Amino acid sequence: MRNIKLTIAYDGTDYHGWQFIQGNDVRTVQGCVIAAMEKLTGGTQEAGTFQVLGSSRTDAGVHALGQVASVWTDSTIPIEAFARALNANLPGDILVLDAEEAPEDFHPIRCTERKRYRYLIQDGPLPELFLRRYAWRMGKLTASRLDADAMAQAARYFLGTHDFSSMENIGSPRTSSVRTIFDVSVRRGISSPEAPFILPMVGSPEDFIEIEVEADGFLYNMVRNIAGTLMEVGRGRHPAQWVEEILASKSRDGAGPTAPPQGLYLLWIKFK
Amino acid sequence: MRNIKLTIAYDGTDYHGWQFIQGNDVRTVQGCVIAAMEKLTGGTQEAGTFQVLGSSRTDAGVHALGQVASVWTDSTIPIEAFARALNANLPGDILVLDAEEAPEDFHPIRCTERKRYRYLIQDGPLPELFLRRYAWRMGKLTASRLDADAMAQAARYFLGTHDFSSMENIGSPRTSSVRTIFDVSVRRGISSPEAPFILPMVGSPEDFIEIEVEADGFLYNMVRNIAGTLMEVGRGRHPAQWVEEILASKSRDGAGPTAPPQGLYLLWIKFK
Repeated sequence: MRNIKLTIAYDGTDYHGWQFIQGNDVRTVQGCVIAAMEKLTGGTQEAGTFQVLGSSRTDAGVHALGQVASVWTDSTIPIEAFARALNANLPGDILVLDAEEAPEDFHPIRCTERKRYRYLIQDGPLPELFLRRYAWRMGKLTASRLDADAMAQAARYFLGTHDFSSMENIGSPRTSSVRTIFDVSVRRGISSPEAPFILPMVGSPEDFIEIEVEADGFLYNMVRNIAGTLMEVGRGRHPAQWVEEILASKSRDGAGPTAPPQGLYLLWIKFK
Repeated sequence: MRNIKLTIAYDGTDYHGWQFIQGNDVRTVQGCVIAAMEKLTGGTQEAGTFQVLGSSRTDAGVHALGQVASVWTDSTIPIEAFARALNANLPGDILVLDAEEAPEDFHPIRCTERKRYRYLIQDGPLPELFLRRYAWRMGKLTASRLDADAMAQAARYFLGTHDFSSMENIGSPRTSSVRTIFDVSVRRGISSPEAPFILPMVGSPEDFIEIEVEADGFLYNMVRNIAGTLMEVGRGRHPAQWVEEILASKSRDGAGPTAPPQGLYLLWIKFK
Protein backbone atom coordinates (compact mmCIF):
# COMPACT_ATOMS: atom_id res chain seq x y z
CA MET A 1 0.00 0.00 0.00
CA ARG A 2 1.09 3.58 -0.74
CA ASN A 3 0.37 6.60 1.43
CA ILE A 4 -0.36 9.62 -0.74
CA LYS A 5 -0.65 13.14 0.63
CA LEU A 6 -3.17 15.32 -1.21
CA THR A 7 -3.48 19.10 -0.97
CA ILE A 8 -7.03 20.05 -1.83
CA ALA A 9 -8.90 23.32 -2.43
CA TYR A 10 -12.66 23.53 -2.45
CA ASP A 11 -15.55 25.91 -2.55
CA GLY A 12 -17.57 24.70 0.45
CA THR A 13 -20.82 26.38 -0.60
CA ASP A 14 -22.57 23.30 -1.91
CA TYR A 15 -21.11 20.81 0.59
CA HIS A 16 -22.17 19.59 3.97
CA GLY A 17 -18.56 19.99 5.09
CA TRP A 18 -15.56 17.73 4.64
CA GLN A 19 -16.53 14.66 6.62
CA PHE A 20 -18.10 11.68 4.87
CA ILE A 21 -20.87 10.11 6.94
CA GLN A 22 -21.45 6.43 6.24
CA GLY A 23 -25.03 5.71 5.18
CA ASN A 24 -25.90 9.41 5.08
CA ASP A 25 -26.91 10.87 1.76
CA VAL A 26 -25.53 14.42 2.21
CA ARG A 27 -22.90 15.72 -0.20
CA THR A 28 -19.49 16.05 1.45
CA VAL A 29 -16.02 16.80 0.07
CA GLN A 30 -14.53 13.62 1.50
CA GLY A 31 -17.44 11.68 -0.01
CA CYS A 32 -16.56 13.11 -3.44
CA VAL A 33 -12.87 12.22 -3.05
CA ILE A 34 -13.89 8.67 -2.05
CA ALA A 35 -16.20 8.45 -5.08
CA ALA A 36 -13.39 9.68 -7.34
CA MET A 37 -11.03 7.06 -5.89
CA GLU A 38 -13.65 4.39 -6.50
CA LYS A 39 -14.00 5.40 -10.14
CA LEU A 40 -10.24 5.66 -10.54
CA THR A 41 -9.22 2.40 -8.92
CA GLY A 42 -12.31 0.22 -9.15
CA GLY A 43 -11.90 -0.50 -5.42
CA THR A 44 -13.87 0.66 -2.40
CA GLN A 45 -13.11 1.90 1.11
CA GLU A 46 -15.32 -0.87 2.48
CA ALA A 47 -13.21 -3.50 0.73
CA GLY A 48 -10.08 -1.92 2.18
CA THR A 49 -8.42 -1.19 -1.16
CA PHE A 50 -8.07 2.47 -0.21
CA GLN A 51 -8.74 4.86 2.66
CA VAL A 52 -9.21 8.65 2.54
CA LEU A 53 -8.49 10.65 5.71
CA GLY A 54 -8.68 14.43 6.01
CA SER A 55 -6.75 16.67 8.37
CA SER A 56 -9.53 19.16 9.12
CA ARG A 57 -13.24 18.52 9.46
CA THR A 58 -14.34 21.76 7.86
CA ASP A 59 -18.04 22.55 8.40
CA ALA A 60 -20.82 23.01 5.87
CA GLY A 61 -20.16 26.11 3.76
CA VAL A 62 -16.54 26.53 4.89
CA HIS A 63 -13.94 26.84 2.11
CA ALA A 64 -10.44 25.44 1.84
CA LEU A 65 -7.41 26.59 -0.12
CA GLY A 66 -5.12 23.98 1.45
CA GLN A 67 -6.94 21.08 3.06
CA VAL A 68 -4.70 18.03 3.36
CA ALA A 69 -5.80 14.40 3.12
CA SER A 70 -3.96 11.12 3.06
CA VAL A 71 -4.96 8.32 0.73
CA TRP A 72 -3.91 4.78 1.55
CA THR A 73 -4.15 2.93 -1.70
CA ASP A 74 -2.90 -0.05 -3.67
CA SER A 75 -3.28 1.98 -6.89
CA THR A 76 -0.29 1.94 -9.24
CA ILE A 77 -1.09 5.28 -10.85
CA PRO A 78 2.19 7.25 -11.06
CA ILE A 79 2.36 10.08 -8.52
CA GLU A 80 2.81 12.75 -11.22
CA ALA A 81 -0.51 11.70 -12.81
CA PHE A 82 -2.41 11.25 -9.54
CA ALA A 83 -3.80 14.78 -9.04
CA ARG A 84 -4.87 15.06 -12.67
CA ALA A 85 -6.56 11.65 -12.56
CA LEU A 86 -8.48 12.55 -9.40
CA ASN A 87 -9.47 15.97 -10.74
CA ALA A 88 -10.90 14.34 -13.85
CA ASN A 89 -13.29 12.48 -11.52
CA LEU A 90 -14.07 15.35 -9.13
CA PRO A 91 -16.73 18.07 -9.49
CA GLY A 92 -15.58 21.56 -10.53
CA ASP A 93 -15.70 22.99 -7.01
CA ILE A 94 -13.10 20.56 -5.65
CA LEU A 95 -9.53 20.69 -6.93
CA VAL A 96 -6.57 18.54 -5.96
CA LEU A 97 -3.67 21.00 -6.08
CA ASP A 98 -0.93 18.52 -5.36
CA ALA A 99 -0.29 14.83 -4.74
CA GLU A 100 2.94 13.47 -3.27
CA GLU A 101 4.17 10.17 -1.87
CA ALA A 102 4.17 10.35 1.93
CA PRO A 103 5.96 8.18 4.47
CA GLU A 104 4.03 5.18 5.75
CA ASP A 105 3.60 6.84 9.15
CA PHE A 106 2.24 10.14 7.80
CA HIS A 107 -1.13 10.74 9.44
CA PRO A 108 -2.92 13.99 8.48
CA ILE A 109 -4.45 14.48 11.93
CA ARG A 110 -1.73 13.22 14.27
CA CYS A 111 1.12 14.83 12.31
CA THR A 112 -0.43 18.30 12.17
CA GLU A 113 1.86 20.98 13.58
CA ARG A 114 0.11 24.23 12.61
CA LYS A 115 -2.92 25.37 10.68
CA ARG A 116 -3.92 28.80 9.47
CA TYR A 117 -7.44 30.03 8.79
CA ARG A 118 -8.76 33.26 7.36
CA TYR A 119 -12.10 34.85 8.15
CA LEU A 120 -13.44 37.51 5.80
CA ILE A 121 -15.92 40.17 6.96
CA GLN A 122 -17.58 42.73 4.75
CA ASP A 123 -18.76 45.99 6.31
CA GLY A 124 -19.05 48.38 3.37
CA PRO A 125 -22.13 50.48 2.73
CA LEU A 126 -23.49 48.07 0.10
CA PRO A 127 -23.64 44.28 0.29
CA GLU A 128 -21.14 42.64 -2.06
CA LEU A 129 -23.52 40.62 -4.18
CA PHE A 130 -20.83 38.45 -5.78
CA LEU A 131 -19.46 37.53 -2.36
CA ARG A 132 -22.60 36.25 -0.65
CA ARG A 133 -21.03 32.80 -0.39
CA TYR A 134 -17.52 34.05 0.39
CA ALA A 135 -17.68 36.63 3.18
CA TRP A 136 -19.76 37.55 6.20
CA ARG A 137 -21.81 40.66 5.90
CA MET A 138 -23.47 41.26 9.21
CA GLY A 139 -27.02 42.52 9.02
CA LYS A 140 -28.27 45.57 10.91
CA LEU A 141 -24.88 47.24 11.04
CA THR A 142 -25.02 50.85 12.04
CA ALA A 143 -23.89 53.33 9.43
CA SER A 144 -20.40 53.43 10.91
CA ARG A 145 -17.76 50.85 10.05
CA LEU A 146 -16.39 48.21 12.36
CA ASP A 147 -13.45 49.42 14.41
CA ALA A 148 -10.64 47.28 12.95
CA ASP A 149 -8.05 48.77 15.33
CA ALA A 150 -10.06 47.77 18.39
CA MET A 151 -10.52 44.30 16.87
CA ALA A 152 -6.77 43.98 16.31
CA GLN A 153 -6.12 45.05 19.90
CA ALA A 154 -8.67 42.54 21.21
CA ALA A 155 -7.21 39.78 19.04
CA ARG A 156 -3.89 40.00 20.90
CA TYR A 157 -5.53 38.46 23.99
CA PHE A 158 -6.00 35.24 22.02
CA LEU A 159 -2.25 34.90 21.41
CA GLY A 160 -0.41 32.15 23.28
CA THR A 161 -1.52 29.04 25.14
CA HIS A 162 -4.98 29.18 26.70
CA ASP A 163 -7.94 27.04 27.60
CA PHE A 164 -10.21 28.06 24.74
CA SER A 165 -13.42 26.58 26.20
CA SER A 166 -15.14 29.93 25.67
CA MET A 167 -14.46 29.61 21.93
CA GLU A 168 -15.62 26.00 21.57
CA ASN A 169 -19.10 24.96 20.51
CA ILE A 170 -20.58 21.71 21.76
CA GLY A 171 -20.94 18.92 19.23
CA SER A 172 -17.42 17.66 18.61
CA PRO A 173 -15.60 17.46 21.98
CA ARG A 174 -11.80 17.20 22.10
CA THR A 175 -9.91 15.62 25.01
CA SER A 176 -8.36 18.98 25.88
CA SER A 177 -9.53 22.51 25.16
CA VAL A 178 -6.02 23.96 25.54
CA ARG A 179 -4.52 25.24 22.31
CA THR A 180 -1.67 27.55 21.33
CA ILE A 181 -2.31 30.43 18.97
CA PHE A 182 0.93 31.54 17.29
CA ASP A 183 -0.46 34.40 15.27
CA VAL A 184 -3.67 36.43 15.02
CA SER A 185 -3.99 39.32 12.64
CA VAL A 186 -6.84 41.69 11.94
CA ARG A 187 -6.51 44.18 9.14
CA ARG A 188 -8.76 46.33 7.02
CA GLY A 189 -8.45 45.64 3.32
CA ILE A 190 -7.42 42.63 1.33
CA SER A 191 -3.79 41.58 1.21
CA SER A 192 -3.28 37.98 0.41
CA PRO A 193 0.10 37.01 -0.93
CA GLU A 194 -0.63 33.35 -0.24
CA ALA A 195 -4.03 33.37 -1.84
CA PRO A 196 -4.90 36.33 -4.04
CA PHE A 197 -8.52 37.28 -4.13
CA ILE A 198 -10.50 38.12 -7.22
CA LEU A 199 -14.15 38.81 -8.10
CA PRO A 200 -16.22 41.82 -9.08
CA MET A 201 -16.88 44.15 -6.19
CA VAL A 202 -19.53 46.75 -5.74
CA GLY A 203 -17.39 48.58 -3.18
CA SER A 204 -13.64 48.65 -2.51
CA PRO A 205 -11.06 46.43 -0.76
CA GLU A 206 -11.34 48.82 2.18
CA ASP A 207 -14.84 47.45 2.77
CA PHE A 208 -13.33 44.22 4.09
CA ILE A 209 -11.74 43.05 7.29
CA GLU A 210 -9.50 40.04 7.15
CA ILE A 211 -8.89 38.00 10.30
CA GLU A 212 -6.23 35.29 10.26
CA VAL A 213 -5.53 32.81 13.03
CA GLU A 214 -2.65 30.33 13.18
CA ALA A 215 -2.56 27.67 15.88
CA ASP A 216 -1.40 24.16 16.70
CA GLY A 217 -5.00 23.04 16.48
CA PHE A 218 -8.54 24.32 16.66
CA LEU A 219 -11.57 23.39 18.74
CA TYR A 220 -15.00 23.00 17.15
CA ASN A 221 -16.02 26.33 15.55
CA MET A 222 -13.09 28.07 17.25
CA VAL A 223 -12.20 30.47 14.42
CA ARG A 224 -15.83 31.35 13.81
CA ASN A 225 -16.27 32.05 17.53
CA ILE A 226 -13.12 34.19 17.58
CA ALA A 227 -14.47 36.12 14.56
CA GLY A 228 -17.88 36.54 16.21
CA THR A 229 -16.27 37.71 19.43
CA LEU A 230 -13.97 40.20 17.67
CA MET A 231 -17.00 41.45 15.76
CA GLU A 232 -18.63 42.42 19.08
CA VAL A 233 -15.57 44.54 19.85
CA GLY A 234 -15.57 45.99 16.34
CA ARG A 235 -19.19 47.07 16.77
CA GLY A 236 -18.27 48.87 19.97
CA ARG A 237 -20.37 46.68 22.24
CA HIS A 238 -17.36 45.72 24.35
CA PRO A 239 -13.84 47.09 24.88
CA ALA A 240 -10.83 45.07 23.69
CA GLN A 241 -10.08 43.95 27.28
CA TRP A 242 -13.41 42.10 27.35
CA VAL A 243 -11.74 39.27 25.39
CA GLU A 244 -9.42 38.66 28.32
CA GLU A 245 -12.43 38.23 30.65
CA ILE A 246 -14.19 35.94 28.18
CA LEU A 247 -11.15 33.69 27.89
CA ALA A 248 -10.74 33.58 31.67
CA SER A 249 -14.42 32.67 32.11
CA LYS A 250 -13.89 29.45 30.09
CA SER A 251 -17.57 29.70 29.26
CA ARG A 252 -19.12 29.93 25.82
CA ASP A 253 -22.13 31.81 27.23
CA GLY A 254 -20.71 35.31 27.50
CA ALA A 255 -18.68 35.30 24.27
CA GLY A 256 -19.71 36.59 20.84
CA PRO A 257 -21.84 34.57 18.42
CA THR A 258 -20.52 31.94 16.00
CA ALA A 259 -19.80 33.75 12.75
CA PRO A 260 -21.39 32.10 9.70
CA PRO A 261 -19.37 29.55 7.70
CA GLN A 262 -19.16 31.30 4.32
CA GLY A 263 -16.48 33.76 5.51
CA LEU A 264 -14.09 31.01 6.63
CA TYR A 265 -11.14 29.63 4.65
CA LEU A 266 -8.71 26.92 5.69
CA LEU A 267 -5.51 28.39 4.23
CA TRP A 268 -2.87 25.75 4.92
CA ILE A 269 -1.69 22.99 7.24
CA LYS A 270 1.92 22.34 8.24
CA PHE A 271 3.08 18.95 9.44
CA LYS A 272 5.75 17.64 11.81
CA MET B 1 -46.27 59.36 -12.91
CA ARG B 2 -42.58 59.54 -12.06
CA ASN B 3 -39.77 58.15 -14.21
CA ILE B 4 -37.05 56.68 -11.99
CA LYS B 5 -33.66 55.59 -13.31
CA LEU B 6 -32.22 52.58 -11.50
CA THR B 7 -28.62 51.38 -11.68
CA ILE B 8 -28.56 47.69 -10.90
CA ALA B 9 -25.85 45.09 -10.27
CA TYR B 10 -26.53 41.39 -10.35
CA ASP B 11 -24.91 38.01 -10.28
CA GLY B 12 -26.50 36.40 -13.33
CA THR B 13 -25.65 32.83 -12.34
CA ASP B 14 -29.10 31.83 -11.13
CA TYR B 15 -31.10 33.88 -13.63
CA HIS B 16 -32.47 33.22 -17.05
CA GLY B 17 -31.19 36.64 -18.08
CA TRP B 18 -32.68 40.09 -17.59
CA GLN B 19 -35.84 39.91 -19.66
CA PHE B 20 -39.15 39.06 -17.99
CA ILE B 21 -41.28 36.79 -20.15
CA GLN B 22 -45.01 37.08 -19.54
CA GLY B 23 -46.60 33.77 -18.57
CA ASN B 24 -43.20 32.04 -18.41
CA ASP B 25 -42.10 30.67 -15.09
CA VAL B 26 -38.32 31.15 -15.46
CA ARG B 27 -36.48 33.35 -12.98
CA THR B 28 -35.33 36.61 -14.54
CA VAL B 29 -33.80 39.77 -13.07
CA GLN B 30 -36.51 42.01 -14.51
CA GLY B 31 -39.11 39.61 -13.11
CA CYS B 32 -37.60 40.07 -9.64
CA VAL B 33 -37.58 43.87 -9.96
CA ILE B 34 -41.23 43.74 -11.04
CA ALA B 35 -42.08 41.49 -8.06
CA ALA B 36 -40.25 43.89 -5.72
CA MET B 37 -42.21 46.84 -7.15
CA GLU B 38 -45.45 44.92 -6.65
CA LYS B 39 -44.63 44.27 -3.00
CA LEU B 40 -43.47 47.84 -2.51
CA THR B 41 -46.37 49.64 -4.17
CA GLY B 42 -49.24 47.17 -4.04
CA GLY B 43 -49.74 47.81 -7.77
CA THR B 44 -49.01 45.67 -10.82
CA GLN B 45 -47.56 46.19 -14.29
CA GLU B 46 -50.75 44.74 -15.75
CA ALA B 47 -52.84 47.38 -13.97
CA GLY B 48 -50.51 50.06 -15.35
CA THR B 49 -49.48 51.44 -11.95
CA PHE B 50 -45.82 50.91 -12.84
CA GLN B 51 -43.60 49.75 -15.69
CA VAL B 52 -40.04 48.37 -15.51
CA LEU B 53 -37.86 48.67 -18.63
CA GLY B 54 -34.22 47.58 -18.87
CA SER B 55 -31.53 48.98 -21.14
CA SER B 56 -29.75 45.70 -21.91
CA ARG B 57 -31.27 42.25 -22.36
CA THR B 58 -28.40 40.38 -20.72
CA ASP B 59 -28.51 36.63 -21.33
CA ALA B 60 -28.78 33.77 -18.85
CA GLY B 61 -25.65 33.62 -16.68
CA VAL B 62 -24.36 37.06 -17.71
CA HIS B 63 -23.51 39.45 -14.87
CA ALA B 64 -24.05 43.18 -14.53
CA LEU B 65 -22.26 45.81 -12.50
CA GLY B 66 -24.21 48.67 -14.05
CA GLN B 67 -27.44 47.63 -15.76
CA VAL B 68 -29.86 50.55 -16.06
CA ALA B 69 -33.63 50.34 -15.91
CA SER B 70 -36.38 52.90 -15.86
CA VAL B 71 -39.39 52.55 -13.60
CA TRP B 72 -42.55 54.44 -14.46
CA THR B 73 -44.49 54.58 -11.24
CA ASP B 74 -47.12 56.47 -9.29
CA SER B 75 -45.30 55.55 -6.06
CA THR B 76 -44.69 58.40 -3.63
CA ILE B 77 -41.66 56.81 -1.99
CA PRO B 78 -38.99 59.53 -1.67
CA ILE B 79 -36.14 59.06 -4.15
CA GLU B 80 -33.49 58.79 -1.40
CA ALA B 81 -35.35 55.79 0.09
CA PHE B 82 -36.17 54.13 -3.22
CA ALA B 83 -33.07 51.94 -3.70
CA ARG B 84 -33.14 50.77 -0.09
CA ALA B 85 -36.85 49.93 -0.31
CA LEU B 86 -36.37 47.93 -3.50
CA ASN B 87 -33.31 46.12 -2.12
CA ALA B 88 -35.31 45.05 0.93
CA ASN B 89 -37.61 43.24 -1.49
CA LEU B 90 -34.97 41.83 -3.85
CA PRO B 91 -32.96 38.62 -3.52
CA GLY B 92 -29.32 38.87 -2.38
CA ASP B 93 -27.89 38.47 -5.88
CA ILE B 94 -29.60 41.61 -7.23
CA LEU B 95 -28.64 45.00 -5.86
CA VAL B 96 -30.01 48.42 -6.78
CA LEU B 97 -26.93 50.64 -6.54
CA ASP B 98 -28.67 53.91 -7.23
CA ALA B 99 -32.08 55.43 -7.91
CA GLU B 100 -32.59 58.90 -9.32
CA GLU B 101 -35.46 60.91 -10.74
CA ALA B 102 -35.20 60.94 -14.54
CA PRO B 103 -36.83 63.28 -17.07
CA GLU B 104 -40.15 62.14 -18.46
CA ASP B 105 -38.58 61.39 -21.84
CA PHE B 106 -35.74 59.26 -20.46
CA HIS B 107 -35.90 55.87 -22.18
CA PRO B 108 -33.22 53.33 -21.20
CA ILE B 109 -33.00 51.81 -24.68
CA ARG B 110 -33.54 54.79 -26.98
CA CYS B 111 -31.35 57.14 -24.90
CA THR B 112 -28.35 54.81 -24.75
CA GLU B 113 -25.17 56.44 -26.05
CA ARG B 114 -22.46 53.94 -25.05
CA LYS B 115 -22.12 50.68 -23.19
CA ARG B 116 -19.06 48.87 -21.93
CA TYR B 117 -18.72 45.14 -21.33
CA ARG B 118 -15.93 43.07 -19.86
CA TYR B 119 -15.16 39.47 -20.70
CA LEU B 120 -12.95 37.48 -18.33
CA ILE B 121 -10.93 34.48 -19.52
CA GLN B 122 -8.88 32.21 -17.29
CA ASP B 123 -5.96 30.32 -18.84
CA GLY B 124 -3.78 29.41 -15.84
CA PRO B 125 -2.49 25.89 -15.26
CA LEU B 126 -5.21 25.10 -12.70
CA PRO B 127 -8.92 25.86 -12.97
CA GLU B 128 -9.98 28.63 -10.59
CA LEU B 129 -12.56 26.75 -8.58
CA PHE B 130 -14.04 29.86 -6.95
CA LEU B 131 -14.53 31.46 -10.35
CA ARG B 132 -16.49 28.75 -12.14
CA ARG B 133 -19.46 31.10 -12.44
CA TYR B 134 -17.41 34.23 -13.10
CA ALA B 135 -14.87 33.53 -15.85
CA TRP B 136 -14.39 31.35 -18.90
CA ARG B 137 -11.87 28.60 -18.58
CA MET B 138 -11.60 26.92 -21.94
CA GLY B 139 -11.25 23.17 -21.82
CA LYS B 140 -8.51 21.26 -23.67
CA LEU B 141 -6.09 24.16 -23.67
CA THR B 142 -2.58 23.20 -24.59
CA ALA B 143 0.04 23.67 -21.91
CA SER B 144 0.99 27.06 -23.32
CA ARG B 145 -0.91 30.20 -22.45
CA LEU B 146 -3.11 32.22 -24.76
CA ASP B 147 -1.18 34.83 -26.74
CA ALA B 148 -2.63 38.03 -25.25
CA ASP B 149 -0.52 40.25 -27.52
CA ALA B 150 -1.89 38.59 -30.66
CA MET B 151 -5.40 38.93 -29.23
CA ALA B 152 -4.84 42.65 -28.56
CA GLN B 153 -3.55 43.10 -32.11
CA ALA B 154 -6.55 41.23 -33.53
CA ALA B 155 -8.95 43.25 -31.37
CA ARG B 156 -7.91 46.46 -33.16
CA TYR B 157 -9.73 45.31 -36.31
CA PHE B 158 -13.00 45.57 -34.41
CA LEU B 159 -12.46 49.29 -33.72
CA GLY B 160 -14.63 51.75 -35.61
CA THR B 161 -17.88 51.47 -37.53
CA HIS B 162 -18.54 48.10 -39.17
CA ASP B 163 -21.30 45.76 -40.19
CA PHE B 164 -20.91 43.24 -37.34
CA SER B 165 -23.07 40.50 -38.92
CA SER B 166 -20.23 38.03 -38.38
CA MET B 167 -20.49 38.70 -34.62
CA GLU B 168 -24.27 38.42 -34.36
CA ASN B 169 -26.13 35.27 -33.39
CA ILE B 170 -29.60 34.62 -34.73
CA GLY B 171 -32.46 34.91 -32.27
CA SER B 172 -32.87 38.59 -31.60
CA PRO B 173 -32.52 40.48 -34.90
CA ARG B 174 -31.89 44.23 -34.96
CA THR B 175 -32.91 46.50 -37.83
CA SER B 176 -29.25 47.21 -38.62
CA SER B 177 -26.12 45.24 -37.87
CA VAL B 178 -23.87 48.29 -38.13
CA ARG B 179 -22.34 49.40 -34.84
CA THR B 180 -19.45 51.60 -33.75
CA ILE B 181 -16.86 50.25 -31.35
CA PHE B 182 -15.06 53.09 -29.58
CA ASP B 183 -12.66 51.02 -27.53
CA VAL B 184 -11.46 47.42 -27.33
CA SER B 185 -8.79 46.37 -24.90
CA VAL B 186 -7.18 43.02 -24.24
CA ARG B 187 -4.74 42.69 -21.38
CA ARG B 188 -3.24 39.96 -19.30
CA GLY B 189 -3.91 40.35 -15.59
CA ILE B 190 -6.64 42.04 -13.63
CA SER B 191 -6.79 45.80 -13.45
CA SER B 192 -10.19 47.13 -12.72
CA PRO B 193 -10.37 50.63 -11.31
CA GLU B 194 -14.07 50.78 -12.09
CA ALA B 195 -14.90 47.45 -10.56
CA PRO B 196 -12.27 45.86 -8.33
CA PHE B 197 -12.23 42.12 -8.33
CA ILE B 198 -11.97 39.93 -5.27
CA LEU B 199 -12.18 36.20 -4.45
CA PRO B 200 -9.76 33.47 -3.47
CA MET B 201 -7.60 32.34 -6.33
CA VAL B 202 -5.68 29.16 -6.81
CA GLY B 203 -3.35 30.86 -9.28
CA SER B 204 -2.38 34.49 -9.85
CA PRO B 205 -3.88 37.54 -11.56
CA GLU B 206 -1.55 36.77 -14.47
CA ASP B 207 -3.70 33.71 -15.17
CA PHE B 208 -6.45 35.97 -16.51
CA ILE B 209 -7.12 37.84 -19.69
CA GLU B 210 -9.54 40.74 -19.54
CA ILE B 211 -11.29 41.88 -22.70
CA GLU B 212 -13.30 45.09 -22.65
CA VAL B 213 -15.48 46.43 -25.45
CA GLU B 214 -17.19 49.81 -25.57
CA ALA B 215 -19.69 50.58 -28.32
CA ASP B 216 -22.79 52.56 -29.18
CA GLY B 217 -24.75 49.33 -29.06
CA PHE B 218 -24.35 45.59 -29.33
CA LEU B 219 -25.91 42.90 -31.48
CA TYR B 220 -27.15 39.65 -29.99
CA ASN B 221 -24.19 37.83 -28.34
CA MET B 222 -21.76 40.29 -29.95
CA VAL B 223 -19.29 40.54 -27.05
CA ARG B 224 -19.31 36.78 -26.52
CA ASN B 225 -18.65 36.27 -30.23
CA ILE B 226 -15.83 38.81 -30.17
CA ALA B 227 -14.34 36.99 -27.16
CA GLY B 228 -14.70 33.61 -28.86
CA THR B 229 -13.10 34.97 -32.03
CA LEU B 230 -10.18 36.57 -30.17
CA MET B 231 -9.73 33.29 -28.31
CA GLU B 232 -9.09 31.54 -31.65
CA VAL B 233 -6.29 34.03 -32.32
CA GLY B 234 -4.97 33.62 -28.77
CA ARG B 235 -4.78 29.85 -29.27
CA GLY B 236 -2.71 30.35 -32.41
CA ARG B 237 -5.31 28.90 -34.78
CA HIS B 238 -5.46 32.09 -36.80
CA PRO B 239 -3.30 35.20 -37.21
CA ALA B 240 -4.57 38.58 -36.01
CA GLN B 241 -5.40 39.63 -39.59
CA TRP B 242 -7.98 36.86 -39.79
CA VAL B 243 -10.37 39.10 -37.84
CA GLU B 244 -10.35 41.58 -40.73
CA GLU B 245 -11.44 38.81 -43.12
CA ILE B 246 -14.11 37.58 -40.74
CA LEU B 247 -15.59 41.07 -40.41
CA ALA B 248 -15.52 41.57 -44.19
CA SER B 249 -17.26 38.21 -44.74
CA LYS B 250 -20.31 39.45 -42.76
CA SER B 251 -20.96 35.81 -42.02
CA ARG B 252 -21.20 34.17 -38.62
CA ASP B 253 -20.03 30.84 -40.09
CA GLY B 254 -16.30 31.39 -40.24
CA ALA B 255 -15.90 33.29 -36.96
CA GLY B 256 -14.98 31.94 -33.54
CA PRO B 257 -17.51 30.28 -31.22
CA THR B 258 -19.80 32.13 -28.83
CA ALA B 259 -17.94 32.34 -25.52
CA PRO B 260 -20.00 31.12 -22.54
CA PRO B 261 -22.05 33.64 -20.53
CA GLN B 262 -20.37 33.36 -17.12
CA GLY B 263 -17.32 35.41 -18.20
CA LEU B 264 -19.39 38.41 -19.30
CA TYR B 265 -20.08 41.56 -17.28
CA LEU B 266 -22.11 44.58 -18.32
CA LEU B 267 -19.97 47.32 -16.74
CA TRP B 268 -21.88 50.52 -17.43
CA ILE B 269 -24.21 52.36 -19.76
CA LYS B 270 -23.97 56.04 -20.67
CA PHE B 271 -26.95 58.00 -21.91
CA LYS B 272 -27.53 60.95 -24.23
